Amino acid sequence: MSTSSELNDIEEGLALKPKFDAAGLVTCVATDAATSEVLMVAHMNEEALRRTIASGEAWYYSRSRNALWRKGETSGHVQRVVEMRIDCDQDAIWIRVEQSGAACHTGRRSCFYRKVEAGEGGARLSFVDAERLFDPKAVYCK
Amino acid sequence: MSTSSELNDIEEGLALKPKFDAAGLVTCVATDAATSEVLMVAHMNEEALRRTIASGEAWYYSRSRNALWRKGETSGHVQRVVEMRIDCDQDAIWIRVEQSGAACHTGRRSCFYRKVEAGEGGARLSFVDAERLFDPKAVYCK
Repeated sequence: MSTSSELNDIEEGLALKPKFDAAGLVTCVATDAATSEVLMVAHMNEEALRRTIASGEAWYYSRSRNALWRKGETSGHVQRVVEMRIDCDQDAIWIRVEQSGAACHTGRRSCFYRKVEAGEGGARLSFVDAERLFDPKAVYCK
Repeated sequence: MSTSSELNDIEEGLALKPKFDAAGLVTCVATDAATSEVLMVAHMNEEALRRTIASGEAWYYSRSRNALWRKGETSGHVQRVVEMRIDCDQDAIWIRVEQSGAACHTGRRSCFYRKVEAGEGGARLSFVDAERLFDPKAVYCK
């Protein structure tokens, strides 16, 4: 448990003290600086966060590949960071980015290309803003 | 590991198949439906997701309190869900909400009231959009 003074320091202080989870990660939300749409949700470890701040380009940590990852290193679809923010308890990062090409590995501009709606017999999905800007096979299977 | 057909189903299908993590949670980003700003990042378990879809109001799961939590149940600052989306691998939810009052327990409209910038000797934070809309002591310590 944090003391009240530590908590105040984290929530009201001006020192960057990211609260990494048990796997050493914080959540990062990337939004489009021009349209404000949410492009993706991913994770950063300490090194990814450090490199993002230092370079002004988004770096993440891939949980599936267990690897540090510069966004766009394969696809060329890099993210230039316009602004970075951190939340009250310092366990989530929000970056507003200039996205070149598309953020999603499926070829869509955003990873959030399906809407969830209540329906009879349970929730269902429908596509929205789901046009592909690139062909994933052509980009990732060279 | 998922087979290629399972993966295609998750990414391109219209069935809701949330990928809960080892703790039974998915990440949820809430943005302001009017201004598009990111209000908060939190988590939902299966029950919170079900209740959010059914009621049209945001429910979360608090990791610190180990409890299901209707946003605003103490503060009155509920979130009415205007649209819900899910991402490509179905492990993150994005809700656009009408936020009554403020989203952050510190009294700010958004939890992201500090900017992170590179500086000599390391990153530093500065307040931005950090006015308090309510006094947390008055709301939570009754």
